[in-house]
Amino acid sequence: MSEQIFKDLGPAHAALGAQFRRAALIDDALGILSWDQATIMPEGSAEGRAEQIAALSVMRHELLVDPRVRENLDAVRDLRGSQAGDSWAAGNLREMERAYLYAAAVPGDLVEATARANAVCEIQWRSARAENDFASLVPSLQAVIDLVGETASARADALSLDPYDALLDEFEAGTRVAQLEPLFGELARDLPGFVEEVLERQASRPSPVLPSGPFPVSTQRELAVELMGVLGFDFEAGRLDISHHPFCGGAAGDVRITTRYNEENFTESLMGVLHETGHALYEAGLPEHWRYQPVGQALGMAIHESQSLLVEMQVSRSRPFLEFALPRMQAAFDGQGAAWDVENFYRLYTRVERGSIRVDADEVTYPLHVVLRYRLERALLSGDLPLADLPGAWNDGMRDLLGIVPPDDRQGCLQDVHWPSGAFGYFPTYTLGAMAAAQLYAAAQGALPGLEDDIAAGNLAPLIGWLRENVHGKGASLTASDLLSAATGEALNPRVFLDHLQRRYLGDA
Amino acid sequence: MSEQIFKDLGPAHAALGAQFRRAALIDDALGILSWDQATIMPEGSAEGRAEQIAALSVMRHELLVDPRVRENLDAVRDLRGSQAGDSWAAGNLREMERAYLYAAAVPGDLVEATARANAVCEIQWRSARAENDFASLVPSLQAVIDLVGETASARADALSLDPYDALLDEFEAGTRVAQLEPLFGELARDLPGFVEEVLERQASRPSPVLPSGPFPVSTQRELAVELMGVLGFDFEAGRLDISHHPFCGGAAGDVRITTRYNEENFTESLMGVLHETGHALYEAGLPEHWRYQPVGQALGMAIHESQSLLVEMQVSRSRPFLEFALPRMQAAFDGQGAAWDVENFYRLYTRVERGSIRVDADEVTYPLHVVLRYRLERALLSGDLPLADLPGAWNDGMRDLLGIVPPDDRQGCLQDVHWPSGAFGYFPTYTLGAMAAAQLYAAAQGALPGLEDDIAAGNLAPLIGWLRENVHGKGASLTASDLLSAATGEALNPRVFLDHLQRRYLGDA
Repeated sequence: MSEQIFKDLGPAHAALGAQFRRAALIDDALGILSWDQATIMPEGSAEGRAEQIAALSVMRHELLVDPRVRENLDAVRDLRGSQAGDSWAAGNLREMERAYLYAAAVPGDLVEATARANAVCEIQWRSARAENDFASLVPSLQAVIDLVGETASARADALSLDPYDALLDEFEAGTRVAQLEPLFGELARDLPGFVEEVLERQASRPSPVLPSGPFPVSTQRELAVELMGVLGFDFEAGRLDISHHPFCGGAAGDVRITTRYNEENFTESLMGVLHETGHALYEAGLPEHWRYQPVGQALGMAIHESQSLLVEMQVSRSRPFLEFALPRMQAAFDGQGAAWDVENFYRLYTRVERGSIRVDADEVTYPLHVVLRYRLERALLSGDLPLADLPGAWNDGMRDLLGIVPPDDRQGCLQDVHWPSGAFGYFPTYTLGAMAAAQLYAAAQGALPGLEDDIAAGNLAPLIGWLRENVHGKGASLTASDLLSAATGEALNPRVFLDHLQRRYLGDA
Repeated sequence: MSEQIFKDLGPAHAALGAQFRRAALIDDALGILSWDQATIMPEGSAEGRAEQIAALSVMRHELLVDPRVRENLDAVRDLRGSQAGDSWAAGNLREMERAYLYAAAVPGDLVEATARANAVCEIQWRSARAENDFASLVPSLQAVIDLVGETASARADALSLDPYDALLDEFEAGTRVAQLEPLFGELARDLPGFVEEVLERQASRPSPVLPSGPFPVSTQRELAVELMGVLGFDFEAGRLDISHHPFCGGAAGDVRITTRYNEENFTESLMGVLHETGHALYEAGLPEHWRYQPVGQALGMAIHESQSLLVEMQVSRSRPFLEFALPRMQAAFDGQGAAWDVENFYRLYTRVERGSIRVDADEVTYPLHVVLRYRLERALLSGDLPLADLPGAWNDGMRDLLGIVPPDDRQGCLQDVHWPSGAFGYFPTYTLGAMAAAQLYAAAQGALPGLEDDIAAGNLAPLIGWLRENVHGKGASLTASDLLSAATGEALNPRVFLDHLQRRYLGDA
């Protein structure tokens, strides 16, 4: 396929295409190795896997910083003006340039050390979390933080950015502290009061009843598979498995999502599966013609998260979807009684609570979990917060923002895989994604009359088709900002999200 | 670890160590990707996986043919005399030289095309076998054969070998047609008569009774896991899963074996698991200090097969092992009645039959399956046998050698994964391995008084310890011939195997 794409673009362009194609295939191999590591790898194999991942990561890095990449990028630069008509080829070059700049900014031995330290720390985190033993994580996590700091400095120098901006920018191009500070400041200021209001109103209404189990894991899985199918997940090109922390991974044409099950409560795992399905649909819907090229990849993590949150928060927790899904849940578990009622499930699935666990958080309190992590990771990286003090700082922050203190570190600072796996600067994308999700769903509603009726009838095809056309199929051909503007008529506008919260949680219904 | 090994050996040596270490880690990544492909990968992901495997294979190839490898090998060559005292370092250089010669003989685009064609054909083979549709396999298998032929020619030129010898030599260094022709000629001449004699004697004795099922897959798996544990398989560094064709794969420190289950008959799958466990123990017992270096890898496939056949044929099908294992089988399946008797199981597990399926064949008829494949693959590669005529030639050969004709191609020329995955020159190693297994086991019996009593008591540690010391832990530090001589006092001697057959199948007991 690459051969066709680059046929008429000259040898420098074709050489770039071949080089980046290879890098994409290494990424795919890494995707499978990482999936395996998180799901089914024997525990004693962690060290060997870390070595494999490190070796492939450094080879990928060497491909991108190959001096011929710089030469070829320079050689085609002059042609870019004349090719402005082909936004895909131009976008591909833009993404190549970006990838080169990121890779060239960081020395190879730092890349290798980072990959190895992250893999080791992620394994350590699993046992530390299981045993609620933060102290045991400190040495390996400190090693990760030190390496993230080195990477941030190196990138900051090369890209003329502040170090933390250089981390943010990797996960979602264009994201800056200057944008986040006022946004997160506003959320930290206003959201606790909004939560208070919502909780008061919620208390004045009937409490949702949790259906009583047990709900066998095998049945939960069958139901998950059924609803994933309704959303268009293709099991001939993907899998559903179990891992400590749910994720969407794998490779192009082999999209693998994970969940974890609780036999006493199926509702959380099910919604988690639908969330990851949103990610998976994005990956599966990327432009096949540009597979293995930078412009054929997903945009940043905020847009990625917008796809999972659109499916989860905007669709799956809505009344129309529950009207469709509830009878299927009932059939699966032979559910009977008052709990098995759309209104009850709607109350359950829009329940607001001050909880400790981010991934279980509702969409109202979720941004506060993000603000906490954003503040703490900046403090950890700047050195203002010594790692040993993280548990205390975490609990203080939870008290300030959410009004609760986690009962232990397992439900506190040990809950997330992100930091142990080296992902600093990632958390803000969750909230940017929630905002983009609300904005995209509002646009889809405008473009698709009868959308909610379709959803209530279990016909998700129009919505998925709209997303495929306006988001998935665009790959990285547009910037996030341009993509949002093209699909919704404006750049990211936090008001749409806040209006959604206002309507859903303090509105008439 | 590599850093320590190469500390005092100079920069050229260290550079070689780093290069080959990286190649070994790519091999490990390929091992996991291939395992995934054969066990749990979604079917629709075959094409992408083939691309990933091709990309990594060509990168591995590029590492080995890097001009600096040749330069560094030349630079250290003069030092090799003075390091003769360190057989490991010398063996490592010998294996590097061999790997370089093999890699340099074949152009990179041929390596890439081969990897892709093999992966595509292997997937095609799965459905062709399921549907008993040989014709559907012809195009992709012809492509594989053509590429194998190109590879054989390229290697033959570079190594001054005949093309088929160049294929044989890759799987077991030193194997030549000149050695196989008389050996296989003798087997083809004498073994059919021996089989006849064995069958006559067998007919004069009580027939074994197959225990009647069903035997649930989950219980079969538990029993397999129990016996693997007795043999020393470490589930913290390995897995047992299901695949179409049983194999041992994975990576260093992550050894993964597979089997397939039949709910009506547990005995075949169980013996298959014990066979693959023999392979796995070899991989797990390789010298850890030299992990990721060529000399730390397993020797050729004949020695590898000797380890699986020693565990299966010499140990697991013997009376002492069955005395230990039978009570465990009985407990697992609540087995009662005449079938559950050591003598009956011994007759069952030493039953000789003219069957169609190689992997189900007994050790007496097995070499005839190998001779058939050896002859056919030579004819396919030379062009004497057009691929379209393979089913007929297969059936003719079965009639000549084994006196039966398979009922369909599924049980005929479609049964093996080897040719679809590009493995030509491999089959002879099974019979060479059977011979080495008999010879090694005879030596272990001589070295370990009371060995059979230990086995009957479920104490496999002395035997595994002897294998670890004399085979596994040697890695590739000796040639196969030197390893056999050191362990048994002589080079490969087919008589030991034939005596074993004579004793077991026509002896007094």
